[in-house]
Amino acid sequence: MTKLSVQPYKGTRDFYPEDKRLQKWMFSKWQNVCEGFGYEEYDAPILEMLELYTAKTSEEIVSEQTYSFTDRGGRQVVMRPEMTPSVSRMVAARRKSLSYPLRLYSIPNCFRYERPQRGRLREFWQLNADIFGIEGVEADIEVIELSDSIMKAFGAQPNQYQIRINSRKLLKEIEAIVQLPQDNAAGFYRLIDTKEKIDVDEFWQKMTGIVPGDDYRELLNGYFSARSIADLPHELVLTQSAKNVAFVIEQLNQRGVSAIFGPEIVRGFDYYTDIVFEVFDMNPENNRAMFGGGRYDGLVGEFGVEPIATVGFGMGDATLFNFLESNELLPQLPSGTDVYIVVLNQQQRAAADVARVLRSKKLNVSVDLSNKKMDKQLKTANKKGARFAVFVGDKEVDSEIYEVKDLQSGVQVKCGLDAIYDTVR
Amino acid sequence: MTKLSVQPYKGTRDFYPEDKRLQKWMFSKWQNVCEGFGYEEYDAPILEMLELYTAKTSEEIVSEQTYSFTDRGGRQVVMRPEMTPSVSRMVAARRKSLSYPLRLYSIPNCFRYERPQRGRLREFWQLNADIFGIEGVEADIEVIELSDSIMKAFGAQPNQYQIRINSRKLLKEIEAIVQLPQDNAAGFYRLIDTKEKIDVDEFWQKMTGIVPGDDYRELLNGYFSARSIADLPHELVLTQSAKNVAFVIEQLNQRGVSAIFGPEIVRGFDYYTDIVFEVFDMNPENNRAMFGGGRYDGLVGEFGVEPIATVGFGMGDATLFNFLESNELLPQLPSGTDVYIVVLNQQQRAAADVARVLRSKKLNVSVDLSNKKMDKQLKTANKKGARFAVFVGDKEVDSEIYEVKDLQSGVQVKCGLDAIYDTVR
Repeated sequence: MTKLSVQPYKGTRDFYPEDKRLQKWMFSKWQNVCEGFGYEEYDAPILEMLELYTAKTSEEIVSEQTYSFTDRGGRQVVMRPEMTPSVSRMVAARRKSLSYPLRLYSIPNCFRYERPQRGRLREFWQLNADIFGIEGVEADIEVIELSDSIMKAFGAQPNQYQIRINSRKLLKEIEAIVQLPQDNAAGFYRLIDTKEKIDVDEFWQKMTGIVPGDDYRELLNGYFSARSIADLPHELVLTQSAKNVAFVIEQLNQRGVSAIFGPEIVRGFDYYTDIVFEVFDMNPENNRAMFGGGRYDGLVGEFGVEPIATVGFGMGDATLFNFLESNELLPQLPSGTDVYIVVLNQQQRAAADVARVLRSKKLNVSVDLSNKKMDKQLKTANKKGARFAVFVGDKEVDSEIYEVKDLQSGVQVKCGLDAIYDTVR
Repeated sequence: MTKLSVQPYKGTRDFYPEDKRLQKWMFSKWQNVCEGFGYEEYDAPILEMLELYTAKTSEEIVSEQTYSFTDRGGRQVVMRPEMTPSVSRMVAARRKSLSYPLRLYSIPNCFRYERPQRGRLREFWQLNADIFGIEGVEADIEVIELSDSIMKAFGAQPNQYQIRINSRKLLKEIEAIVQLPQDNAAGFYRLIDTKEKIDVDEFWQKMTGIVPGDDYRELLNGYFSARSIADLPHELVLTQSAKNVAFVIEQLNQRGVSAIFGPEIVRGFDYYTDIVFEVFDMNPENNRAMFGGGRYDGLVGEFGVEPIATVGFGMGDATLFNFLESNELLPQLPSGTDVYIVVLNQQQRAAADVARVLRSKKLNVSVDLSNKKMDKQLKTANKKGARFAVFVGDKEVDSEIYEVKDLQSGVQVKCGLDAIYDTVR
């Protein structure tokens, strides 16, 4: 028989216990902050019908990046590339019985067939938080405040990240002013989305192809160089969408959230309808959008029910991990094993009894069943990061007095079974 | 545009917050008991290469039940139907650097293309717990004790479930005695696996086709009617494998775990090598194997490294859920929202400030942004299962005294911001 590969599938990760501990630490921070804001956790199946994505997700994702296939019953299915269509489907299914504002979050794994690179994997996890049923900008403000609170909960400092806010409606105003041909709209948004990644000359050269003529060059230039809403060209500064962006930024600043206007923010998905935002990593080595979101009021309505105003965002695990790593915000996490029982003289049965008593007191207890010499068992206990070792052999079975060793300090004490718990706690 | 379906993909489930709370409750029990026994959580990608399963999983699963397809790079991949091959791959990859006994657990979702029915879904979650590196039966005993501790942690009573133990090696002894033709081995195990589901005559009629002649009818009859190892026919009772089963049962009984000999237990997967066990639901309406496991010493060795002795089990969420439901062991779980802020006079900004203070004290706070009348907001608070309502309007902003209403008792008190926390806690 040929031997099997031990590698995980390309672009995916195995999580050994030390990796899983970090992931759980990250997820539990996400959970705590979201629940602090009254968001409740939900989940949806990884497999969805293909039609769910052809409706509204970005075209690039559907046609080039999905894991789609035909099941044994002839259905066209997809391993979800993102969560937003699924949660919209779920809300539509119970449109009338749910109560609003409805706050939901989830930490799904998603799949995209991309070239694996730093911060970009084929299987990734993504916090999704959404608020349904609020048309006013209070919902946008809350969702952005929630994003900011998550960054702060991870220990991020104000100079390490930046929140940039824009409005799809403001871009629509520009479309109207420059009389953008309908066919060029998709290209217009795609180009803006790449602005930070290409050089200035290339950007303007491409822009000339999309917005023909020089008539609007000054307007566009004024728009893209504006660092605040007040800086916008006069045709834009008094529009309702500009005022909304200014109000959101002002409210956030008053709430201790630092946010600025970002004229280049559009977001890749087609479903956004108004305010959009992105959170940038300000580390020079890692300078990119970490995550973002915005308002998408039309998606629930795609399911044949009355539309519901919605604001939400998605935050990937891999980009966050890079941020935390480069800013030295990752913790050292202990293994969680409180007691490692070193078994001598084949006293497995007695060791199991000691373990049972300690477990009943909520201690995590690992029993060494290897029959190896004491030194080797102790070495294993240390390698596994256990906090204490308890020795169980003939002597202990006779005397009912056990040696308990603190594996960090090396201090060793003798005590009865009842006292082991107190020593360890 | 045609409207999209709101249904999840066939055989899968949406988890609304109330469903997700139950799932998380179930998972956290699994986690607590496993960690109590020193098992550490790991995870692996859902997508694996097809070759991983063609090697060792049950043939029925690979050829009829897998979600397998070709990715955009031409690789044959599978959405995992079970976790055992993945964890074996991971252990093989770090065969030398890991330390033993190695205890691992995971709660993966798995996929099988089956006809959906009660307790059987296309997407299901499964607790997997495995111990690596111990050849002695102490590992088998521990894993079965762990299974039993999980049942007890969910509140199961001894009369509600039964643990049945057998040995693949004991079955090998029978194969040798009855001179089973090699070609009939797979059919032999498959037939035994169905013994509880078909009637007695059909079982023996089929057995005659697999073990030709009447010479061994008495032996087989004696084997299948044995309710303890001591009852076994004399050719079997003195074998080492029979003694091992007896020892495991005796040790478990001494540890307070009720287990019996189960001659019909074989387990569906081909990789088991010795002790196997199943846990049965004793409810007459639901009488079936809920889950099981056993020893599989050969799987890690399939990856071209030295084999590692392994014992483990897998426990599905849907069967456990049915067990808990029919035995009335499912809890009523609160929503987790401590405070619902009812916002009056459009005081959203002040409400956000109050929320921020309460959140900084680790309360979960939901703010009603709907601008609806007070009664409607209170109704929403009740529907969402929040514990307290706090009112924030012009009066409260002026006086800094807030009305706090206990939504269970209806009692209402007035207090300052600092005292809200004490009232709620």
